[in-house]
Amino acid sequence: MKSSILDTISSPKDVKKLSFEQLEPLCTEIRERMIQTVAKTGGHLASNLGTVELTVALHRVFDCPQDQIVWDVGHQCYTHKLLTGRREQFLTLRQEGGISGFPKRKESIYDAYIAGHSSTSISVASGLARAKSLQHDPHHVIAVIGDGAFTSGLAFEGANNAARFGDKLIVILNDNKMSISKNVGAFSKYLSKVRSRPAYFKTKDTVESVFNHIPVVGKPMAHLMMKTKNTFKNVIYGSNWFEDMGFYYLGPIDGHNLETLCDVLERAKQLQRPVFLHIETQKGKGYSFAEENPGEYHGTSGFDIDTGKSFKSEGTNFSNEFGLYLTELAKQDSRICAITAAMKYGTGLNHFSHAFRKEGRFFDVGIAEPHAVTFAGGLAANGMLPVFAVYSSFLQRCYDEMIHDLSIEEQHVVIGIDRAGIVGNDGETHQGLFDVAMLANIPKITVYSPATYQEMKKSLYSCLYEHTGVCCVRYPRGGEITLPSGAENREGFSIWENPKDRKLLLVTYGRISKEVCHAKELLEQQGIFASVMKLCQILPFPEQAASFAQQFDHVFFVEEGIKIGGIGQMLGEILLEQNFNGRYHVLAIDGRFVEQATVSRAIEMTGLDAASIADSCKNWINHID
Amino acid sequence: MKSSILDTISSPKDVKKLSFEQLEPLCTEIRERMIQTVAKTGGHLASNLGTVELTVALHRVFDCPQDQIVWDVGHQCYTHKLLTGRREQFLTLRQEGGISGFPKRKESIYDAYIAGHSSTSISVASGLARAKSLQHDPHHVIAVIGDGAFTSGLAFEGANNAARFGDKLIVILNDNKMSISKNVGAFSKYLSKVRSRPAYFKTKDTVESVFNHIPVVGKPMAHLMMKTKNTFKNVIYGSNWFEDMGFYYLGPIDGHNLETLCDVLERAKQLQRPVFLHIETQKGKGYSFAEENPGEYHGTSGFDIDTGKSFKSEGTNFSNEFGLYLTELAKQDSRICAITAAMKYGTGLNHFSHAFRKEGRFFDVGIAEPHAVTFAGGLAANGMLPVFAVYSSFLQRCYDEMIHDLSIEEQHVVIGIDRAGIVGNDGETHQGLFDVAMLANIPKITVYSPATYQEMKKSLYSCLYEHTGVCCVRYPRGGEITLPSGAENREGFSIWENPKDRKLLLVTYGRISKEVCHAKELLEQQGIFASVMKLCQILPFPEQAASFAQQFDHVFFVEEGIKIGGIGQMLGEILLEQNFNGRYHVLAIDGRFVEQATVSRAIEMTGLDAASIADSCKNWINHID
Repeated sequence: MKSSILDTISSPKDVKKLSFEQLEPLCTEIRERMIQTVAKTGGHLASNLGTVELTVALHRVFDCPQDQIVWDVGHQCYTHKLLTGRREQFLTLRQEGGISGFPKRKESIYDAYIAGHSSTSISVASGLARAKSLQHDPHHVIAVIGDGAFTSGLAFEGANNAARFGDKLIVILNDNKMSISKNVGAFSKYLSKVRSRPAYFKTKDTVESVFNHIPVVGKPMAHLMMKTKNTFKNVIYGSNWFEDMGFYYLGPIDGHNLETLCDVLERAKQLQRPVFLHIETQKGKGYSFAEENPGEYHGTSGFDIDTGKSFKSEGTNFSNEFGLYLTELAKQDSRICAITAAMKYGTGLNHFSHAFRKEGRFFDVGIAEPHAVTFAGGLAANGMLPVFAVYSSFLQRCYDEMIHDLSIEEQHVVIGIDRAGIVGNDGETHQGLFDVAMLANIPKITVYSPATYQEMKKSLYSCLYEHTGVCCVRYPRGGEITLPSGAENREGFSIWENPKDRKLLLVTYGRISKEVCHAKELLEQQGIFASVMKLCQILPFPEQAASFAQQFDHVFFVEEGIKIGGIGQMLGEILLEQNFNGRYHVLAIDGRFVEQATVSRAIEMTGLDAASIADSCKNWINHID
Repeated sequence: MKSSILDTISSPKDVKKLSFEQLEPLCTEIRERMIQTVAKTGGHLASNLGTVELTVALHRVFDCPQDQIVWDVGHQCYTHKLLTGRREQFLTLRQEGGISGFPKRKESIYDAYIAGHSSTSISVASGLARAKSLQHDPHHVIAVIGDGAFTSGLAFEGANNAARFGDKLIVILNDNKMSISKNVGAFSKYLSKVRSRPAYFKTKDTVESVFNHIPVVGKPMAHLMMKTKNTFKNVIYGSNWFEDMGFYYLGPIDGHNLETLCDVLERAKQLQRPVFLHIETQKGKGYSFAEENPGEYHGTSGFDIDTGKSFKSEGTNFSNEFGLYLTELAKQDSRICAITAAMKYGTGLNHFSHAFRKEGRFFDVGIAEPHAVTFAGGLAANGMLPVFAVYSSFLQRCYDEMIHDLSIEEQHVVIGIDRAGIVGNDGETHQGLFDVAMLANIPKITVYSPATYQEMKKSLYSCLYEHTGVCCVRYPRGGEITLPSGAENREGFSIWENPKDRKLLLVTYGRISKEVCHAKELLEQQGIFASVMKLCQILPFPEQAASFAQQFDHVFFVEEGIKIGGIGQMLGEILLEQNFNGRYHVLAIDGRFVEQATVSRAIEMTGLDAASIADSCKNWINHID
C-alpha cells in the first residue's frame, strides 16, 4: 500500500513539516490505510475513523512525547499509532507479537498510558498533569474521551477533581452521539442540548484575547468584560456543566475541520489552564458502511471492503444463545428484567430489548457497571428477577457493589458473565481471567461455568429458579465446545472415567474442558491413563466432586483463569484438609497478564492447549513418581 | 429517659396522629434521645442530628413501609429507627445483638435497603421504584443522599439513569456542605452556587399548580407558561444540573423548617414523577459541640455530654503512625504524594495535608476511590510516588482500577490499607475482611500485613523504595499489638520455635498474631507443643516461609479474613504442590459476614480469639492423630 504523504511520517515532527494543504490528503491516506488494515486484522474501525483530523491536528499543535495524549478506552488511537513511528508495523495490529489495538506505554514512548476499559482518561491525565506541574514541566496533558465514556462514574469523579489545581490539562470530548451503540441516559440528552447552541468559544475568545494584549489595563478589563460575557452567555446558552466543573469551555466545534481544530487547539494551549474542548465528530467517517452502521463497525472482525461484509461466519454463539433463552424465559415470567452496560448487541440482549423495551423491563444503563449491579439489587428487593449480562473483565468494576449491595442481604440477582476466559486479540485489558477469583471470596455466591449451550441454559434456569442470592453463569467468547461421549453426569459435574485405574484425575471446567479431554487421549497414547472431571457448578464447590477426587492418587487441575484464588487452589486446600494423600498440581495462569493473539494461540501461549496440558501433566507425573 | 411525645410513637402512623404543633417538641426529644444514646454507644452523631426534621416530615407525608426510604450511607437513619418501632431498642445501637447503626432489611420492614458504603441510594431507589411501576404499585420511593455522597461516580451513574422512566422517585439532596469533613471538588462548588439562588420551587410551582386546576385548557396553558418560566429561570438561575438529569427540581429549602418540609414533600408526592428536592441542613444541629465540630462528631465513640469530650483514650494508633511516618518520609522526598477519599482524619493523612497541601502534594478527592487509584497511576507514570490511604472495605471499589490502571503496566503506587480486618461496631458493611483475597489474585502485587508500628514503618519504606509495581501495607483499626519475645526474624516472617519437636506449626499474620501466640501458650498448658510462624509479607508469599512450614507434621493456619482466596488457602495449595505429607487446616472467616460487636467480641464470635484458636487446634489435632 503506497501513501505518498503518510509514508513520509516517521514521527509527529514530520506532521509539523507538512504544509497545511497536505493535511487533508494525509487524512484521506490515513483513512485508506486504516480501512485496508482493519479489513484484514479486525479491530475498532468506526471510532478510529472519527478521530483522524483530531489526531493530525493534535500532533500538529502539540509536541509529543513531551506533551502527552491519553486516549480514553484506547480504541481511537489508530491514527496516533500511524503518526508515531508505528506505520510500518500497522499491519500487525492486534496480531500476536504485533502492535496493540490500544495504547500501551510498553509499546511506545508516545503512548502516555494504557487503556482498554472506558472512562479512565480524565483521572489518568489529571495525575500526569499534576506530576508535570509539581516537576515544573511546562508541557500539556490532553485527555481524549468519548461521550459514551461520560456515562461512567469514573469520568465524573475525574472531572470533579481534575480542574482544581489549574494544571495544563485539556480534556477533549469527542462527541459522536454514540458510545458503542446509541448513547443513553440524561447526560447524553444534556450533550445534545449543548450541541444545539452555536459555538461559544469564538465570541468569548475574541474578547479575552484582544484585551489580554493591551498591557497593564488589559487584564483587569478583560476580566470585567469576561464577567459581562459570562452573564450574557448564561442568558443565551444556559450555564455549562463543564465550566461548573472548573474548566474553561470551548466548543462545540466541527471535529473534521482541520483549520478550526488547529485554531482551537492552539488557543487551548495558550490558555495554560484546564480547558474542556467539545468537538463533534462522526463515527465511521469516510467509510460509507461504517457511517451508516457505526455500531456494527465499532469492533469488527475482518471484512470485505467493497461490500462491507464481515468474513466472520454468522453462526450463533454463547451471547446470542443466552439472550435468546433469557427472552424465552421472560415471556413466561414477567418478573425477569435484563440490564446491559452499553453492550446490548455484544451480550445478545438485543433479543430481550426487542421484546421487552417497551414494557420497561430492559435497561441499557450506559458504561455504568457499578450502577447496573446496585440498580439490580433494588429491582430484586422489590420482587423482580434482574439479569445483568456483562463481560467478565468489565465486571471487575462491580466487586464492591456485589458484596455490599447484593451479597450481605442476599439479593437474588443473576449475572451473565460473557467473555469469561481468554478473549483473544484485544489483549491484556480485556481477558476474562479474574472473574472466578474475584467472585470466589464473596460469601454465599453461586457460580456456574458451562461449556455447552445446553449447560448454559440449564445453569441460567437454576440461577433464576433454584437458587437465591447472587448467582452467576459464566461463558466464553464464541461458541460451544463438543465434548466426547461417555460422560457420567453427576450433581454439578461430569466424569469421563478411565476404567483401568484411579491413579490420575484431570479436573477442569468451562471451555478448556475440550482441551483437557483431548489431553487425556494424548496421555493415553503415551501410556498414562487418566480420568477427567469437568465441573459445571464451581461455587459453592460441589462436595461430591471433592469426594470423588479424593479417591485418586494424583489430581491435576487445569484452569483458564488466574491461579491465585481460583478453583484449582481452592480444591487443593479442600483436598489437603480432607487428608488427601496424593499429589496435586494446578495448571493455570499464574501471576501474569495474557497478551494479544487469536484465542487458540493465546490458549497455546498460556500452556492450556491439549498438547501442552498433556506435556505438563506427563512431566509432573514423571517428576513425582 | 422520658420523652412525652416520642414515647407515644410506635410506628410512623403515630407521627401522623400528632398535631402539627407537637412536631417541633418531638424533634427536640429525638435530638435529646440521640445525643444521650450516642454519648454511651458511640455512633454517627452529627449527620443524624441534621436529618431529624426531614425524617419526621417524611413519615408525616409518606406511608412507610409501602412508600420506601433509602438512606444513603445509612448514617442519617437514627431518627428513622426511633420512629419505626425501634425506640425501645435504641440503647442497643451498634452493640452486639442490638440494632445496627445502618439500615438493614433484615432488621425492619421499614428499612428499604442496606447501606454502609456511600452513594448507592439513587441506584437502589431507582431499582425499587422501577419494580413498583412494573407491578403497578402506586407508592413512592425516596432516596436521601448527602452532598458528600455526590462526589462518588456511583451517585452520578444513578442520577444519569434514574429519571428516564418517569417513576415515582424522589431524590432528596441533604446538603450540609460537608461529606465527612468539608466537601471537595468542583461539584461542591456548583452546589454552593445553586444554594445562593432563592428557592425556585415556589414561583414555578404556583404557576403550574394554578393552571393545572383549570380543566381542559389548563394543562396546555400551564405547559406554555412553564416553558416561559423555564426560559426565565435559565436567565435568573442558570440552568440546573438536576433538571438536565431529567428530574423536576425543587429547592433549595431550609431542611430544619418543618412547615416548609411538609409542604414541599407533599408537593413532590403530588407530582407523580421523578423529583429532585434540594434541602439545606446543618450537620450537628442542636448539639453545640457537634455544630462547631461536625467532622469530629461524624463518627464518634462515647463522650461526655456536658463537655463534649470523648471517652476514648487519646493514644496513637496505626492510622496516626502511618500518617506521621509518611509525612516524615515526604519531607526528604518531594516525589511522595498522598491521596485520601474523604478520610483525611480517619487515615491519619491530616499530618501530611498540614505539611504539603500548599505544595499541591496532598489530594482529598472526595468519596471517589476508583478515581483515587487511577489518578495515582497518572502521578506514578510521570515519576511521582503516590500513596493512597484507604479503608479496606472501601478499597473494594477499586478492584478493576488496580488491575487495569496499575497492575498491567506495573505502575508504582503504594496503598495504605487502613481498618484491615475486623472493625467492630459498624458491622457487616465495614469489616475489612476481603482485601487480602481481593488483592491476592492481582499479578505481581506486593502486600505486607504488619502487626506493630515498627513493622508498619518498615513495610511502608520497603513499598516505597525496595519494590516496584502495586504495593500495599495493610493494618488494623486501633493500635499495635505486643508480641512475645524470642522471635527469630527471617525475610518476610518471624518464628517462635518450639524446641521440643516439629510436630505442629501455627501460621498467621497481622493483628491476630497476638491471639495465635497466646493460643500457643494455652496449647502448651495442655501438652500440645507448637511453633508459631508470623508472616509480615503475605504477597508474594515468602518462599522460605513455605519451606519452613514444610518441615512440620501439621500446619494450622489462622487468618483474620475471608477464607476462600485467602493466604491460608494459598499456602495449603503450595504445601500440597510441594508434596507436603502432613495435615493442614485453615481457621478463617468462611462464607459469612461478621455482625456488629466490639472488635474483641467480634474476634471471639468468629472463633479467632486465643482460647477459641487453641480449642479448634486441639480438636483438630485430636481428630487427625
